[in-house]
Amino acid sequence: MEKLFSVTLAGGRKTEVFLASPGEDLAVGSDFIVTDANAGQYLGSRTADVVLPPGEGSKNWDSIDRILSSALAMGLARDSLFVGLGGGVILDMTAFAASIYMRGARVSLVPTTLLSMVDATLGGKTGIDYGGGKNLVGTFFPAEAVIIAPWTLKTLSDAEYRSGLGEVLKHAVLSQDDRLFRFLEENRNGVMGRDDAILAEMIRLSLEVKISYIERDPEERKGIRSALNLGHTFSHALESYMDYGISHGEGVAWGTAAAIRTGARLGITPQDLASRTLALLSLYGFSSDAYRIPADDFASYSAAIGKDKKKSRGSVRFVLMEGQGRPVLIELPEDEIRKAVIG
Amino acid sequence: MEKLFSVTLAGGRKTEVFLASPGEDLAVGSDFIVTDANAGQYLGSRTADVVLPPGEGSKNWDSIDRILSSALAMGLARDSLFVGLGGGVILDMTAFAASIYMRGARVSLVPTTLLSMVDATLGGKTGIDYGGGKNLVGTFFPAEAVIIAPWTLKTLSDAEYRSGLGEVLKHAVLSQDDRLFRFLEENRNGVMGRDDAILAEMIRLSLEVKISYIERDPEERKGIRSALNLGHTFSHALESYMDYGISHGEGVAWGTAAAIRTGARLGITPQDLASRTLALLSLYGFSSDAYRIPADDFASYSAAIGKDKKKSRGSVRFVLMEGQGRPVLIELPEDEIRKAVIG
Repeated sequence: MEKLFSVTLAGGRKTEVFLASPGEDLAVGSDFIVTDANAGQYLGSRTADVVLPPGEGSKNWDSIDRILSSALAMGLARDSLFVGLGGGVILDMTAFAASIYMRGARVSLVPTTLLSMVDATLGGKTGIDYGGGKNLVGTFFPAEAVIIAPWTLKTLSDAEYRSGLGEVLKHAVLSQDDRLFRFLEENRNGVMGRDDAILAEMIRLSLEVKISYIERDPEERKGIRSALNLGHTFSHALESYMDYGISHGEGVAWGTAAAIRTGARLGITPQDLASRTLALLSLYGFSSDAYRIPADDFASYSAAIGKDKKKSRGSVRFVLMEGQGRPVLIELPEDEIRKAVIG
Repeated sequence: MEKLFSVTLAGGRKTEVFLASPGEDLAVGSDFIVTDANAGQYLGSRTADVVLPPGEGSKNWDSIDRILSSALAMGLARDSLFVGLGGGVILDMTAFAASIYMRGARVSLVPTTLLSMVDATLGGKTGIDYGGGKNLVGTFFPAEAVIIAPWTLKTLSDAEYRSGLGEVLKHAVLSQDDRLFRFLEENRNGVMGRDDAILAEMIRLSLEVKISYIERDPEERKGIRSALNLGHTFSHALESYMDYGISHGEGVAWGTAAAIRTGARLGITPQDLASRTLALLSLYGFSSDAYRIPADDFASYSAAIGKDKKKSRGSVRFVLMEGQGRPVLIELPEDEIRKAVIG
């Protein structure tokens, strides 16, 4: 395996990010493997110890309980290595369970979706849904290794692949240099064709952007890591408004467009960045008009924003862009939110 | 309140330890208070938000679930302050719940037993019992404040007070200087009479010893913090063998005597430290002969040691003393364990 990054995160813990080649053991060194039925195929001759049903519905304490009790029954100790292999849900839960098993066992994560490769896996956030809210219970517990195996993306559905692309495009806007943005502008065919080398480079550039934010604010307490929520406040409300009938990354791409247009309208985002971002989104098939909220439905969309509000005791700050790689957190008046989303 | 210590613990988090005077608000700054029926009396005009049944039987996920769902219903955010007030069980659970609420809310802890003041509260260990094992699920999550209110010890039962003294005596042996040891030798009457000023000084000296070990090894990974387990391997097995019909501190005092005598027998512990320690234990009414295991029952005592073995994958190392403040971790042959405990 090729080491891509060594990242210092919450509590000074280090995560090493590796790029695996086909045929390499993705669960190397594991004492205990958690996966879902979809991802088991990448285990080679190994077998999983816990197989959870795929999907957000598994993201609860019952699943954690299953992982913990299996680990205990197998006699795992604090220095045992838990390996999570699968999409974001599996990885979040494996890492959460490991983080509380004997006050912290070892964990290594192998994402098999583009969304989890570029977004959820690196950064130490673990958690489960609780009381109707997403990720309301969890820990900051960086994995000791994250293993990227781009070829696992070949079998991903188009919708899931597209969901990951939404986050990649967001990272392009947040990047302090122009490499990822240009790479995406210049390699549309390779990206859409899921070419191995192109995928590896796109993921590497995307992770570089994420790392530059999370290393400066690993526990999201300084308003720096929060910039990675570009598009997310618009998107969370849309996902909730649509009863989760839209993928996360699809929502994020739409929310990024909404944030960019709002920034441009308010004179915060330069026109050239706005045009270039909307063109890039469009190049990958994300139309900013894809989801317009009917005017007489705005109240229920706006109520969904209230959920984020609850999480932060009253104020919701949107991420807007003063330039490429220059996010600002701003409270938006209701009227600006309305302008951004109604059709 | 008087600040006694500022301690740097897991993840670089700081815990400040305060000594409160009677009449001061022990739940200062709280957004949310967890306590048990016994400790509610120290809340003054405040009321608790969650009241759990006292005792080890509450130390499970159901209680954590109650705390988390109440916190959520009250709209608490990541910057809300959870206050736990009570004995070790309440504090461990409040801190565990806070540590996973939105990936870590703020927590401050107010111990109302001597055992929790000198032992469990400071150091960041949180947790619940799981699958029949103690503290098998939890986190390292140091409280931002620990508030010591010695006058709450006046109403403690003699048995509970004595349990705390067991840990204090253990700290005297582990101390790298002689202050706590001498203080205990010279102040028996004040300690047994629970004189406020004597209690405050005894707790301060005892915490100083604990801090010297935990600051060098906050997550118990280097074998330094493990020294605080002096007497504990002998004790855990005794507690289990006696079906928990003995208090923890009572067991620890007995286990400390067993470790000291074993060390002396093996030529590891100097005779003068051994005699002085056994005399101190005896001064406080802890006879090393209080619990002798009948020879034909040794197998079941020895099996109970196996539980600690499971936790550490095979080897159990006992803490023995090469001198005052000079612990060593040593695997003991079965025969030495037998000599230490059978009657």
